[in-house]
Amino acid sequence: MSFVEVLDKGYVRLVNHMGSDLTVVNAARVSYAKESSELNEKDIRLIRFLAREGHTSPFRHVILQYEIYAPLMVARQWWKYVIGASHAEGTGDSLEAWNESSRRYITEEPVFYVPGPDEWRSKPENSKQGSGEVLSAETGGQLTKELIDYIEAGVQKYEAALQAGVCAEQARLFLPAYGMYVRWYWTASLQSVCHFLSQRLEHDAQKEIQSYAKAILELSKPLYPASIHELIEQTKSDSE
Amino acid sequence: MSFVEVLDKGYVRLVNHMGSDLTVVNAARVSYAKESSELNEKDIRLIRFLAREGHTSPFRHVILQYEIYAPLMVARQWWKYVIGASHAEGTGDSLEAWNESSRRYITEEPVFYVPGPDEWRSKPENSKQGSGEVLSAETGGQLTKELIDYIEAGVQKYEAALQAGVCAEQARLFLPAYGMYVRWYWTASLQSVCHFLSQRLEHDAQKEIQSYAKAILELSKPLYPASIHELIEQTKSDSE
Amino acid sequence: MSFVEVLDKGYVRLVNHMGSDLTVVNAARVSYAKESSELNEKDIRLIRFLAREGHTSPFRHVILQYEIYAPLMVARQWWKYVIGASHAEGTGDSLEAWNESSRRYITEEPVFYVPGPDEWRSKPENSKQGSGEVLSAETGGQLTKELIDYIEAGVQKYEAALQAGVCAEQARLFLPAYGMYVRWYWTASLQSVCHFLSQRLEHDAQKEIQSYAKAILELSKPLYPASIHELIEQTKSDSE
Amino acid sequence: MSFVEVLDKGYVRLVNHMGSDLTVVNAARVSYAKESSELNEKDIRLIRFLAREGHTSPFRHVILQYEIYAPLMVARQWWKYVIGASHAEGTGDSLEAWNESSRRYITEEPVFYVPGPDEWRSKPENSKQGSGEVLSAETGGQLTKELIDYIEAGVQKYEAALQAGVCAEQARLFLPAYGMYVRWYWTASLQSVCHFLSQRLEHDAQKEIQSYAKAILELSKPLYPASIHELIEQTKSDSE
Repeated sequence: MSFVEVLDKGYVRLVNHMGSDLTVVNAARVSYAKESSELNEKDIRLIRFLAREGHTSPFRHVILQYEIYAPLMVARQWWKYVIGASHAEGTGDSLEAWNESSRRYITEEPVFYVPGPDEWRSKPENSKQGSGEVLSAETGGQLTKELIDYIEAGVQKYEAALQAGVCAEQARLFLPAYGMYVRWYWTASLQSVCHFLSQRLEHDAQKEIQSYAKAILELSKPLYPASIHELIEQTKSDSE
Repeated sequence: MSFVEVLDKGYVRLVNHMGSDLTVVNAARVSYAKESSELNEKDIRLIRFLAREGHTSPFRHVILQYEIYAPLMVARQWWKYVIGASHAEGTGDSLEAWNESSRRYITEEPVFYVPGPDEWRSKPENSKQGSGEVLSAETGGQLTKELIDYIEAGVQKYEAALQAGVCAEQARLFLPAYGMYVRWYWTASLQSVCHFLSQRLEHDAQKEIQSYAKAILELSKPLYPASIHELIEQTKSDSE
Repeated sequence: MSFVEVLDKGYVRLVNHMGSDLTVVNAARVSYAKESSELNEKDIRLIRFLAREGHTSPFRHVILQYEIYAPLMVARQWWKYVIGASHAEGTGDSLEAWNESSRRYITEEPVFYVPGPDEWRSKPENSKQGSGEVLSAETGGQLTKELIDYIEAGVQKYEAALQAGVCAEQARLFLPAYGMYVRWYWTASLQSVCHFLSQRLEHDAQKEIQSYAKAILELSKPLYPASIHELIEQTKSDSE
Repeated sequence: MSFVEVLDKGYVRLVNHMGSDLTVVNAARVSYAKESSELNEKDIRLIRFLAREGHTSPFRHVILQYEIYAPLMVARQWWKYVIGASHAEGTGDSLEAWNESSRRYITEEPVFYVPGPDEWRSKPENSKQGSGEVLSAETGGQLTKELIDYIEAGVQKYEAALQAGVCAEQARLFLPAYGMYVRWYWTASLQSVCHFLSQRLEHDAQKEIQSYAKAILELSKPLYPASIHELIEQTKSDSE
């Protein structure tokens, strides 16, 4: 499997990947000039040890590549992770590449994320961040309709502005951009991917980005079962 | 001077800086265990040589720190530079830190960039990117008014959604976010800053980000006159 | 104080630094557009929270710059930390710059680290790495003498080779290089420095690099007392 | 082919690689949601354009992985490139991982690089760096013999010290380490690899590292012919 649908119109596609759990083991044992060709119990214990002790450089020799199609607000949180948090919280930004579509060019019709009537969430009770229970279908239905109308109005004004000769880089000021889908390539090491997962699978991450994190997990776990298990477990217990 | 106004409501503030042109010279001469305490002609020639030959690591020992308040579309281009382009085009992301405000929290009233009647630009004649001449004041006035109205409608819907109990992270879908001001701290080496300048001062960069690049230049040039002169000149001739 | 002697001929010099504990607080609160000008109890609690939760990006806006003179084997471990471990174990290599002297040029007489008679350590009992008790002064005295003799022989051959017209980059093959002193500039964020400290102050780090870590701590702690306290404590409890 | 011998006992082995010239093209066109499945003339022109304009982020989505066995002095220059120069001169350190053997453990007999009688080079005439003509076979033969003797003496003292109970991390002070072979895994993006090549294939790079650069080129060029051609050509003309 190499494709998972996410939200109303988004997706994650696994474009490519390099290496296996064995790559981690062989990189870690470069001092010993020993190379395994099949993963055994001892190798799995080594992976566990590396994850637990934070000796995560061997996990950087395994690479994954995804194409992602997601609302801009999700892309922005992802970027912040790559720039700020990731620098900060433990992955190194290294082994990350990012190529993304731009609204400075007119390439595609703008497409927007619209939560369905039963997908609008209340504000959380005891936190400044995140969300709580789902709102009533009545309230939700009203919001969905209003958002669709507001987006349509924006797109009309955007197109009218283009028609009037305005450059695309300014006309886009009319777009309700947080929900607009953007597409990008993300190439990252297994270490970076797992750090992203451990942050974004958490219950206080925005629901929409959690959905993308789950898709990433679903696509990647079968390829590196031992490493992903250990890295995510380890990070969880760290933050408890 | 440590503050420059940009666009209708934005600014760049120089928060702090470390080192001088001499820092570059002393880092480059660490092999020789010689340290200068005053910048002389020979030092300036060394700076020129380092910039010309691409031996730019000594410029990474000089650090600048800014607070920036700019529309989200400017922030996104800046980030892409930091993640993608910068990784790619020559500065290393190293010696960059970024901390930015978030609309997942309700902290401030949203504030928006609105081009004035004489600030709307046409699309360029022979390029898919960038912009051309300024449109007529009549067309411009109409666009400015429409944008103000559209923003007001969005902000009203955003606030009504919050009132109805919607979490902030979803309510923001109603905001025409490309023009919304965000605020961030940027800490970067002189090498990164100059690479940013050489990219963003160019005539094909979006006008709005050019304005920020000019503010960065105005605040930084007096602090490292020789290094900034040489690095920007050098990069220019590279891309010619 | 800005200079600490380390080992027999080495040192760490604090060349420059930028910011204070308040910088961390202000970078973290950029969302709120509030800026403190004096550090209070609430600020210290915020620093503690950031360190505990791994939200370490604000610590990247504080920068330190050192000149270090240390044996090559110490420099290599430091580099590995900067490249491998640091990428891997949590600091991001970002906000690090490194400029170092080179033996490809003939710039200074080679100078070597020689442990004194009471500084030779035994191998550890239950580990493949690290060291145990100090050996007897008799054994130690013998080793010190032999090392001095071996170094002298190497330096003579090195100089004879240069005399015979050999290029410096090959003549250096005669130098027992692990103990040879090299000098470098290291510019790093507070986050990187603290990650380095938490790794290299540990009892299983090589004694020689522990001594440099202590010098770094001694020079840096008075400048950022709250941040360094919290970051190092936090990392300690993480790895327990 | 996946293995090239270098110097007297070293080698480069291509362990793995990901993507093709098409990957670069598809990453660059993510804005247009068009994906090529076969490389055509238009794609090659795009690659040329990207390399020439310095829009090198698409080249970061292609990854190569090598195992390298080389003298420590070569490894150090390589690292400096990865840390310092690379940060500085244009690749981003991103998408690099490094795992290397260590002499803090006793894992293998130390093995040393010894130039043959006809491989000793003179110092360059008009430069502080690099090397000139090969010395006479007589002088060379003498140097080779002396180096072998000096290494043997060092290894004997190293082993005697281990025998006497000295920890490995101190005993290694007796090794003439510049020529000692170390082994490491290097995982890097095509952009990083080409930047390394453009630096290290140059005539003023140390001959020994030039040999490794040639091996990297030989192993990699057939996999990404268009990209490597354009990136290296481009960098050459940049530095002219």
